[in-house]
Amino acid sequence: METLSEIRCFEGVQGVYRHDSDVCGCPMTFAVYLPPQAAAGPVPVLWYLSGLTCTHENAMTKAGAQGWAAEHGMAVVFPDTSPRGAGIADDEAFDLGQGAGFYVDATEAPWAPHFSMYSYITGELPTVLFRNFDLEEGAQAICGHSMGGHGALTIALREPERFRSVSAFAPIAHPAASDWGRKQFAAYLGTDEGTWAAHDATLLMRETGLDLPLLIDQGTDDQFLDLLQPEALAAAIAERRQPAILRMQKGYDHSYFFMASFMADHMAFHAEALFA
Amino acid sequence: METLSEIRCFEGVQGVYRHDSDVCGCPMTFAVYLPPQAAAGPVPVLWYLSGLTCTHENAMTKAGAQGWAAEHGMAVVFPDTSPRGAGIADDEAFDLGQGAGFYVDATEAPWAPHFSMYSYITGELPTVLFRNFDLEEGAQAICGHSMGGHGALTIALREPERFRSVSAFAPIAHPAASDWGRKQFAAYLGTDEGTWAAHDATLLMRETGLDLPLLIDQGTDDQFLDLLQPEALAAAIAERRQPAILRMQKGYDHSYFFMASFMADHMAFHAEALFA
Repeated sequence: METLSEIRCFEGVQGVYRHDSDVCGCPMTFAVYLPPQAAAGPVPVLWYLSGLTCTHENAMTKAGAQGWAAEHGMAVVFPDTSPRGAGIADDEAFDLGQGAGFYVDATEAPWAPHFSMYSYITGELPTVLFRNFDLEEGAQAICGHSMGGHGALTIALREPERFRSVSAFAPIAHPAASDWGRKQFAAYLGTDEGTWAAHDATLLMRETGLDLPLLIDQGTDDQFLDLLQPEALAAAIAERRQPAILRMQKGYDHSYFFMASFMADHMAFHAEALFA
Repeated sequence: METLSEIRCFEGVQGVYRHDSDVCGCPMTFAVYLPPQAAAGPVPVLWYLSGLTCTHENAMTKAGAQGWAAEHGMAVVFPDTSPRGAGIADDEAFDLGQGAGFYVDATEAPWAPHFSMYSYITGELPTVLFRNFDLEEGAQAICGHSMGGHGALTIALREPERFRSVSAFAPIAHPAASDWGRKQFAAYLGTDEGTWAAHDATLLMRETGLDLPLLIDQGTDDQFLDLLQPEALAAAIAERRQPAILRMQKGYDHSYFFMASFMADHMAFHAEALFA
């Protein structure tokens, strides 16, 4: 693992690192915020998964997470959203290929050789992270925005034992029924829709439920509401009598201004679970 | 004045606007954050002047000001740092021309026709602002980063009656004696150094002092410390027995991570003066 930068931030350190990923077959960059409490021993860790077009950098610079992470004493990890590079498949559309990994392991050409973001986020990057940073592996939480909200929800639904809490900002809540999902799942996973259900938060919620604290914020003026389909996930949660906090936030859109506005709530929510 | 965007943020509105500037001779873009309290009547306003290469957008997205502005109930204005456009003089260097107006009124070719950022920030933009937004003209404060810290300090030193408080992050504190200043003042104002003194915080402080609450934060690991020369301004403040808070912040650099880390302090400092 190579250190690209380490900058002091809220008495902690905002670092950016690169490592050679086996599952993605390319160098991958990620960011870690270590709060000041990390100097005294291992701290809990929140995974923050970003949305379409983002790298590790967007949330690191615009979401306003570090101040609250420092207050509560938790680390935050900001992974990239796909493999990247000249030799790696891509598409002209912003919502397919590089910057749009959708947190699945692609089985189809030309994506299969590199686009393994599910295995990367759930397997390889945790190994790199816990080997290189003094973090509490038993105290993890996960959060995400838009495509990253989809990632956070589906990963938590599939691997709930790894996390103490999960939250999402404006998640792609039912990708198997949305143009943000059907196009990408067809490309990455093939046209057999049976394989898609493992990556759809609404379908997973209906199937298995989720025994974790769950918080979802969604702006009522989000320009992508029709693609996100929060109503499908809300219905699945209600049908299962699933404990959850769903908040429709009046007037907010899909931007980082929305996320920054409620970041304090999400960080406090996760802190309550992580320090329980 | 044209509205480019208005986005809900911390229960207020983050807007971006454009107007035709007479003093700059081109359209100018600026951002205003209106806190939720603005819905009930006029609120105080903090000017936030940005540094080299920045537009209105950098601090708006990365400085983390809005949450604190909402808590205290003050507006924040984020102006651009220079005139911009195809027909406007520029230089290949990042620290001269577009993105580097240095908050002076240029008298020299080729800059004089458009580079009038002092008059723009102190005259024209306030007129536009108070005509279009319901703000307390009698409750203004000013803050800035790097080149914008230079702008905030020199404007407050020259027009203290307009402001209730002034603060800066890593300001260019003595430009008449720095490569961040001499080059630009020579280009914009000519080689007669007598004209430079009106735009040098250290020289102005020595000459006139400042009867305003003053807060300056400077990182000890700032990569530009030799260009910023905080020691010159610190000496001038001490020599004049000028009330001020100067903080050398251990380990911090020149980035927005530094600013975000201490934004809460600066906003509380200004709020104390604005709501006195």
